[in-house]
Amino acid sequence: MKKGAVKVAVVGASGYSGEELVRILLRHPDAELSAVTSRQLAGQTLAQAFPKFAQFPAARQLRFTEPNAELLAKQAEIVFLALPHGVAAEFAVPLLQLGSQVIDLSADFRLKSAVTYREFYGHDHPAPELLAKSVYGLPEVYRSTIKSSSLIASPGCYPTSILLPILPLLRANLIKETGIIADSLSGVSGAGKKVEADYLFVECNESLRPYGIPKHRHLSEIEQELSLAAGQQVVIQFSPHLIPVNRGILTTLYLAPHKHFTTSAEMNALAEQISACYGAAYGKEPFVRVLEAKALPDTKNVVGTNMIEIAWRLDQRTGRLIVMSALDNMIKGASGQAVQSFNILCGFDETAGLI
Amino acid sequence: MKKGAVKVAVVGASGYSGEELVRILLRHPDAELSAVTSRQLAGQTLAQAFPKFAQFPAARQLRFTEPNAELLAKQAEIVFLALPHGVAAEFAVPLLQLGSQVIDLSADFRLKSAVTYREFYGHDHPAPELLAKSVYGLPEVYRSTIKSSSLIASPGCYPTSILLPILPLLRANLIKETGIIADSLSGVSGAGKKVEADYLFVECNESLRPYGIPKHRHLSEIEQELSLAAGQQVVIQFSPHLIPVNRGILTTLYLAPHKHFTTSAEMNALAEQISACYGAAYGKEPFVRVLEAKALPDTKNVVGTNMIEIAWRLDQRTGRLIVMSALDNMIKGASGQAVQSFNILCGFDETAGLI
Amino acid sequence: MKKGAVKVAVVGASGYSGEELVRILLRHPDAELSAVTSRQLAGQTLAQAFPKFAQFPAARQLRFTEPNAELLAKQAEIVFLALPHGVAAEFAVPLLQLGSQVIDLSADFRLKSAVTYREFYGHDHPAPELLAKSVYGLPEVYRSTIKSSSLIASPGCYPTSILLPILPLLRANLIKETGIIADSLSGVSGAGKKVEADYLFVECNESLRPYGIPKHRHLSEIEQELSLAAGQQVVIQFSPHLIPVNRGILTTLYLAPHKHFTTSAEMNALAEQISACYGAAYGKEPFVRVLEAKALPDTKNVVGTNMIEIAWRLDQRTGRLIVMSALDNMIKGASGQAVQSFNILCGFDETAGLI
Amino acid sequence: MKKGAVKVAVVGASGYSGEELVRILLRHPDAELSAVTSRQLAGQTLAQAFPKFAQFPAARQLRFTEPNAELLAKQAEIVFLALPHGVAAEFAVPLLQLGSQVIDLSADFRLKSAVTYREFYGHDHPAPELLAKSVYGLPEVYRSTIKSSSLIASPGCYPTSILLPILPLLRANLIKETGIIADSLSGVSGAGKKVEADYLFVECNESLRPYGIPKHRHLSEIEQELSLAAGQQVVIQFSPHLIPVNRGILTTLYLAPHKHFTTSAEMNALAEQISACYGAAYGKEPFVRVLEAKALPDTKNVVGTNMIEIAWRLDQRTGRLIVMSALDNMIKGASGQAVQSFNILCGFDETAGLI
Repeated sequence: MKKGAVKVAVVGASGYSGEELVRILLRHPDAELSAVTSRQLAGQTLAQAFPKFAQFPAARQLRFTEPNAELLAKQAEIVFLALPHGVAAEFAVPLLQLGSQVIDLSADFRLKSAVTYREFYGHDHPAPELLAKSVYGLPEVYRSTIKSSSLIASPGCYPTSILLPILPLLRANLIKETGIIADSLSGVSGAGKKVEADYLFVECNESLRPYGIPKHRHLSEIEQELSLAAGQQVVIQFSPHLIPVNRGILTTLYLAPHKHFTTSAEMNALAEQISACYGAAYGKEPFVRVLEAKALPDTKNVVGTNMIEIAWRLDQRTGRLIVMSALDNMIKGASGQAVQSFNILCGFDETAGLI
Repeated sequence: MKKGAVKVAVVGASGYSGEELVRILLRHPDAELSAVTSRQLAGQTLAQAFPKFAQFPAARQLRFTEPNAELLAKQAEIVFLALPHGVAAEFAVPLLQLGSQVIDLSADFRLKSAVTYREFYGHDHPAPELLAKSVYGLPEVYRSTIKSSSLIASPGCYPTSILLPILPLLRANLIKETGIIADSLSGVSGAGKKVEADYLFVECNESLRPYGIPKHRHLSEIEQELSLAAGQQVVIQFSPHLIPVNRGILTTLYLAPHKHFTTSAEMNALAEQISACYGAAYGKEPFVRVLEAKALPDTKNVVGTNMIEIAWRLDQRTGRLIVMSALDNMIKGASGQAVQSFNILCGFDETAGLI
Repeated sequence: MKKGAVKVAVVGASGYSGEELVRILLRHPDAELSAVTSRQLAGQTLAQAFPKFAQFPAARQLRFTEPNAELLAKQAEIVFLALPHGVAAEFAVPLLQLGSQVIDLSADFRLKSAVTYREFYGHDHPAPELLAKSVYGLPEVYRSTIKSSSLIASPGCYPTSILLPILPLLRANLIKETGIIADSLSGVSGAGKKVEADYLFVECNESLRPYGIPKHRHLSEIEQELSLAAGQQVVIQFSPHLIPVNRGILTTLYLAPHKHFTTSAEMNALAEQISACYGAAYGKEPFVRVLEAKALPDTKNVVGTNMIEIAWRLDQRTGRLIVMSALDNMIKGASGQAVQSFNILCGFDETAGLI
Repeated sequence: MKKGAVKVAVVGASGYSGEELVRILLRHPDAELSAVTSRQLAGQTLAQAFPKFAQFPAARQLRFTEPNAELLAKQAEIVFLALPHGVAAEFAVPLLQLGSQVIDLSADFRLKSAVTYREFYGHDHPAPELLAKSVYGLPEVYRSTIKSSSLIASPGCYPTSILLPILPLLRANLIKETGIIADSLSGVSGAGKKVEADYLFVECNESLRPYGIPKHRHLSEIEQELSLAAGQQVVIQFSPHLIPVNRGILTTLYLAPHKHFTTSAEMNALAEQISACYGAAYGKEPFVRVLEAKALPDTKNVVGTNMIEIAWRLDQRTGRLIVMSALDNMIKGASGQAVQSFNILCGFDETAGLI
């Protein structure tokens, strides 16, 4: 057993983000994975269910159990929920009542408005009274609130790839809050482990396709956070695409600077402001890398890490600002970011278990 | 020998689009491939250089030769040029003087302005006097001109994926000519057979990356054609991305309708206009498929064909029109489209050899 | 309608080999696809179910129907069955009684022994009386029998990749009938359109895995045909592997020549015999390509074609003969080969619709 | 700086195995990467050359230098060579003279015979006097020798995938030393970062192909080690194949047990012996996993780890033993295994930095 480690549980550890969470926690120096649940895998050891974890001694001993809130509250101090939306809330309610701290990877507690939840998720929110208590677990934005929250709603993968590049610009009033377009590409693990024909190898390989256009669910949390930053209601265009890679999200953002620039001098002046804005926002962030010179993001440089890469270009021809980001949808877009919040919550080094 | 077939030659048949052109022409009922040239492959039969063509009797006999305009003019009535820009013009000039008809797959004769050519291609145009004589070989737009031209400049892959969806809307004055954004994804064959580290398997596989942002060369021909259609100078935003598939381009277009629509009724009225516009433009086109109902484009439905798939959505939240297209960059984006022009030029059924 | 074309039907056209069969038949100059059936797709046109076929006028009119033997017997002269084993026999029986000719792509009529069928397929053969009437539809071997058969059992994909390289050597008594090993790699379409977790993109991509070891079902037909050629019972080792490509089978065969060769001269003498043997067997075959010189098979050279590539090497160090083959599991390994038999049956050029 | 860490250098850090070595060493708790060399990247920081390492503070400071043995001997106690064969020896000689310990990932010191080296590598060995001093760095076999060696020749990727499964069986005299066949599949990174047309994305994707048949260079070290274990000269058949994945080797071995087994009882008795043999050999090995029950190896379960997975099957029909293994060619097949030897050499926990 790791000395002084915090006991953690993962509920719903059979999906892709649950699996990635387990992988990170098994290696985490300050966390001890004390319970993993999955109705489907109950009885098996972690190593039996996921041979790739067999190298970890703990994985050869820990067995999946049926999920049970009372038991979990005894087994772990902090419980990660890697469940579908709707189901996560059912576990969060009793766990919080029993005194556990909850880090939820689903969409259940990301929205502040139960009305918006209903609009985008198609059913009433199962525990609307908790919406005011949860914190949106984007560490670069809500670090101090995360520290003292017992219910952390870890952001979605697309939202992370969109919010981190835009928020500093919006706050610094460098761009207009209207006309924002986010065009995103996602690897197939983003769809989860759904056994549907659309996600078969032969259907995805050598295929490029848009989906969920024009109203994807993630718009709800993206627009909530952009609106909070802008101080007014922001509506954006968001187009996700399914691409044949296992992991990775690449987002290209089309933004309108407040300042017109027609000369090179004007463009350079604006470029300095943008550069300073990102420097101030992310210069010391361990998991945000603003690329320099001619470099552009590439998912292969971030896959397997908790890093988001950001690059930007001003276009003198169109007057637009193009910002591009790349992240691993399973790590910075899900499980890594959740562990980053866990580190903040516990007062550990924020990079513990993540580098 | 095919009875009554037109003799054709392919100059520069060792690259990917040359290879695809050869494949199509070997199967074409009304074309006889009488010469293929490649400095690198000179002396080999087509079947030796490309084992996959060995099933065609002609490929076992036809040998690559060094390119020679005088010889080509004797061997073939129509010469396809599948050469890099700059080099193509060097062959076009003598071939035209010798009375051959030329279908050029390079960028050399797509632009009407030698100044724009220099701006985007970085060197003086090698034969500016021919720019006025060439026709931009987009059959759905320039069919009648192609019929009587001796120099056809076959469009680029990205431009085809962008122009076919936008032109009818622009002509019908349904969308604004400002603020157009084209976000495109391309398979790796789009880069040609360049032996560079960037295109190695390990560097491309599991990688998603933008490139050429914000001023890709293809912008020159895209904006030329949009400007002609709009009757005024059009400047657009274009962002290409490299994606790990062999073939296929998927483009997502962000367009602003002239009419605001806030109610469902207004949106439906506009939708009818758009639907009618596309119906009028493409209802009888053999290689344009405007998708119905909930279908969205998927490159796997067009790869291996000369078809472009188009779908569109109005977004009541943002007031935008999103149009998406998918095509095979090697066929409708290059060699298939060139053969479509060939069919028109020769008076053959436009689909000959292409279905 | 195509003049003088033979009317054909495809039963079970919703799977991958059914789809490929439809694609080939739509382009076939002498076949008219008059019926396609699928319980799941009944009512839809071919173009609706498979957008990629929309370019064929016939695909925009022909609708899927529920399968019905009596109706099929009226609609078509020749019926292709692309159904799971066990189910195919149920349709073959009434169709044959009604006078139709049947080309079956399933395993139901490939074996001559109902006992072997039961051993490998786990249930009694549904129509054992027909086993004596069917012909194993490997054109290069059974061409003359196919010509006059009303029930053609088209071979499996792995068997084709193994039998075509071995049979001539075995018949010429150049190799021992003992100790044969076949190590095969298959693309994921080989598993059919099964919606199972094992075949999800994320589970297959970046994964290499053996399966069905050591007793895969295809052994039954492979050993039947090898035994017939050898004139004695042949038992082989066969190891299939699942590889992340859409299509293609690559087989590596380990064979023991009867003659020992220790000197280069002995090896060269044997090499000449092998070369002559393959030349005699396949020199005039349109769909078998024995590679020359240093070339080795590559699935990318055969995918999309009805061709099988074969290469071989003698190893002076081990005394073994290594033979390698590559084919497209959906075409030469399934639907293309079935159409090749169809061409033979109808007296058409054997390559009609296949080049 | 890490407290009490051993200073290490990586010479030739720009290739794939050098890059992977750097990644592992940056995370290693007991190693401090004090120098990285590359002619091509000299002057750049690790983070500039490999953006994915930018998350490691050390990578933002450490700069590539030109390789210089004298300097390296001062900067590091242990030097890893990730250079092409032939070149590695040139650096090893002065480094050893200057008192450094060398872990070489090339083939230069794997063979005990300079004659065999010449036969397989085509040139004289550059430092034959060192061949007697080096140890073949397969930890599961040579652990105690590695501990006290100053020149460790880390095994090749294919050899590791073949030797670990076979050696225990050969030593226990359970299998014949004749007739061994190894059929291997490798991801494209196995070819290194060679900028050649064969390794372009479009040439590898959707392609399956054998190569190097029948006499691949790795045979030399495989047969050397098998012969040492068997106590007699062993000659095997080895067939490598190139497969479109980034990483991973899957090997299928065809072996002949000494005991014939025709009844199930005989087979079960032999199975118990094999199981006991592997249990004794690998039961306590941290990086060898012998699979149980119905599980078969899958590269996706080992990619990213230093683990080799092994499974086996007896075939009652053929009397053969089939053994299959999977590993990550870059880790257990190269850099991870080198670090495993480093751990042994330094007396660290053998799994340090590798789990």
